[in-house]
Amino acid sequence: MQAVELEVHRYLAAGRLPDEDASIVDAIETAADRVLEEVGIRFQDDSETIDAFVQIGAVAEGDVVRLDGAELRRIIREKVPGSFRLRARNPLRDTIVGGAEGPIFAPIYGAPDVLLENGNRVKGTRDIYHRLMTIAHSSPGLSNTGHMICVMDDVPEACRPLEMALAHLTLSDKPFMGSIASPAVASEIIELTHASVGRPTKPGECNLVHLINCTPPLTYWENPLKCLRAIAVKGEASMVSSYMMMGATAPTTVAGALIQGYAEVLAGIALTQLWRAGAPVVMGILGLPFDMRSMLPSFGDPASQLVQIYAAKLGRRLGVPVRGDGAITSSKVDDAQAGYEGGRALSSSVASGASFVLHSAGWLEQGRCVSVDKFRRDASAIAGSFLAPSAACEPPLALDPAIEADIRRRLSAISKHTVRSD
Amino acid sequence: MQAVELEVHRYLAAGRLPDEDASIVDAIETAADRVLEEVGIRFQDDSETIDAFVQIGAVAEGDVVRLDGAELRRIIREKVPGSFRLRARNPLRDTIVGGAEGPIFAPIYGAPDVLLENGNRVKGTRDIYHRLMTIAHSSPGLSNTGHMICVMDDVPEACRPLEMALAHLTLSDKPFMGSIASPAVASEIIELTHASVGRPTKPGECNLVHLINCTPPLTYWENPLKCLRAIAVKGEASMVSSYMMMGATAPTTVAGALIQGYAEVLAGIALTQLWRAGAPVVMGILGLPFDMRSMLPSFGDPASQLVQIYAAKLGRRLGVPVRGDGAITSSKVDDAQAGYEGGRALSSSVASGASFVLHSAGWLEQGRCVSVDKFRRDASAIAGSFLAPSAACEPPLALDPAIEADIRRRLSAISKHTVRSD
Repeated sequence: MQAVELEVHRYLAAGRLPDEDASIVDAIETAADRVLEEVGIRFQDDSETIDAFVQIGAVAEGDVVRLDGAELRRIIREKVPGSFRLRARNPLRDTIVGGAEGPIFAPIYGAPDVLLENGNRVKGTRDIYHRLMTIAHSSPGLSNTGHMICVMDDVPEACRPLEMALAHLTLSDKPFMGSIASPAVASEIIELTHASVGRPTKPGECNLVHLINCTPPLTYWENPLKCLRAIAVKGEASMVSSYMMMGATAPTTVAGALIQGYAEVLAGIALTQLWRAGAPVVMGILGLPFDMRSMLPSFGDPASQLVQIYAAKLGRRLGVPVRGDGAITSSKVDDAQAGYEGGRALSSSVASGASFVLHSAGWLEQGRCVSVDKFRRDASAIAGSFLAPSAACEPPLALDPAIEADIRRRLSAISKHTVRSD
Repeated sequence: MQAVELEVHRYLAAGRLPDEDASIVDAIETAADRVLEEVGIRFQDDSETIDAFVQIGAVAEGDVVRLDGAELRRIIREKVPGSFRLRARNPLRDTIVGGAEGPIFAPIYGAPDVLLENGNRVKGTRDIYHRLMTIAHSSPGLSNTGHMICVMDDVPEACRPLEMALAHLTLSDKPFMGSIASPAVASEIIELTHASVGRPTKPGECNLVHLINCTPPLTYWENPLKCLRAIAVKGEASMVSSYMMMGATAPTTVAGALIQGYAEVLAGIALTQLWRAGAPVVMGILGLPFDMRSMLPSFGDPASQLVQIYAAKLGRRLGVPVRGDGAITSSKVDDAQAGYEGGRALSSSVASGASFVLHSAGWLEQGRCVSVDKFRRDASAIAGSFLAPSAACEPPLALDPAIEADIRRRLSAISKHTVRSD
């Protein structure tokens, strides 16, 4: 542990990654195993998860489960596919996650606010979502249109998952990400997307990848656990991530954060395999230094890059595809700061060997805002820098009208039972 | 060779660096040895250099010398110091180049134009130089004040080296870089700096590092060769660099550029040791894709980052400190493009393990312009991101008045014999 700390400090001080660092990765594994065994992971309000872990020999005390790291790794190495096909409505746009063809880039996920081209800052709306989706589809840099590019503030919350799915299914024929609003909604979108893709699913294939967040430190909340189960059971992909604020929800140090994050995702990834062996997984360990002056995480910091580089090494050792972050920044506008913070983050994700780069386009202000201009610029910078030259994307194939009508029927049924909050 | 090309293309396509790549470095070495043996290096108008190589068994044909790469590496490994102390007038500001304390950051080198804070773009002047020097000294991020931060267009060319030395010696007490205007001038500045530092020089120490550029492809011009000799003989440091335009002065591909650049610097570095065993050296292999539309190099490209990462591996294998580039960009203003191109370049230099990062602050527009605002921002971003927190720099120690008077006397003597060109 001290050796790890020393090594990573040497990087931060000396700006130099050791050539051979198997010993560091070993040390992180050993320390994470101690955390899993001596402290354990809290699984809130989901007794099925706790039972599943107890059945493989874990020790539960209330909702805290002490786990055997070596056993979790054994399960993961044996069962998680090293790569999988994430399918699109248009078979030409299928992508291989974890394959040799390189990283998949998806836009920002979860922005409540939008910075428009005219400089106005507004709440996200359905119209803006449609506009961003159109850009995402036509950008060769983005091979995945993601999920919740912005929040649709003018749509009742209960309708948003279906509204988003409708946008991703009609305005694009690229792969996208599933909903984690609830296990039922996750399942509903999985089924609709399966029908829209239309082709029978072979082993090693799925239609959606879902962001399943741990809640650091060392805790999973009820909804992500239940969504993870619903998703894994259907053979769909989970992106099991720990997004740590170093100094707030994780240790301040790079080594400490890596140890905690690795313990967290080991538990989550193994859990997917307890529900269904072979369910596709992407692993994310991400650490952002927490600024005690602004009480906000700092994006684009070299410490985060180091976390990313070691996360990718840990993932490769486990044999699972790894997530990275794209052009993330703390800046409120698309200025030089946005450029260098985002450039550093994206660059280290790609160099680390990440297979799926989330938040690749549009991100501003700790992710609370998507800029339409930056969305375009980020997407074209990716296409220009990291990909072979390619023509702009063709318009999407039309969605089966029966499916579109079905989604619209469901939406109007929900709307009838929903009292608008505004 | 084809295997190297394949491997590096896999990176560019797949955005993934192989974990174990000794075989790639081996392949680059082998291919560079073939270039040295079958094509050779041209040493223009410097028979002493050619004689020196012939004495160690090389075969000269006119000014082209065919060399034995293995022998060059043997000389370098045996004689070049792995690290050295670059001294300052203020002993507290001495820096170790190649040491465990991390990279040294120096500002932009060689900008003819200046972008002022008011947005005006002007030719560099002595007054502006003094202002930039003051910022460089007071910036904790810059541990070296470099050389020719801008061209002093209002000073006769013959006076510029001494004027610059005077500025670096009076407005700062940090280490800086020597002149390569001519061998005589290089020697003069070396002696003045030696006197200004004042302490006796121990083995493994020097007072200046000098940028010695190869002129790709596979050529060294007369002046760099004669400067290299004058500098090495005095035991001062040479930064032997190949700055390649990939597609113009070097192959378009990363592997091809690495092979050519490695052959070039192997010859230059070994040459320093033929003049004086143990003379300190920094190695630079830098490749910029050349844009055939703009007829300019593109800065901040992922291909350059890959060249840097492998250059650092080659340097570590040779046991010599390696150079990297800082926040370089093609952008004309300090905007998002400047940010992300510079952020990527700086980040990969630091991650590669570079010991000396040139062009760290102020660079705009392919290096033809130094921006005063960007100079400040780059310097503070380095301090904030890559260094431990530290107070702003104390004012410099006063230069020995006798030395200052001596320099001014020399300057006025040169001025008398100089007809101003404007």
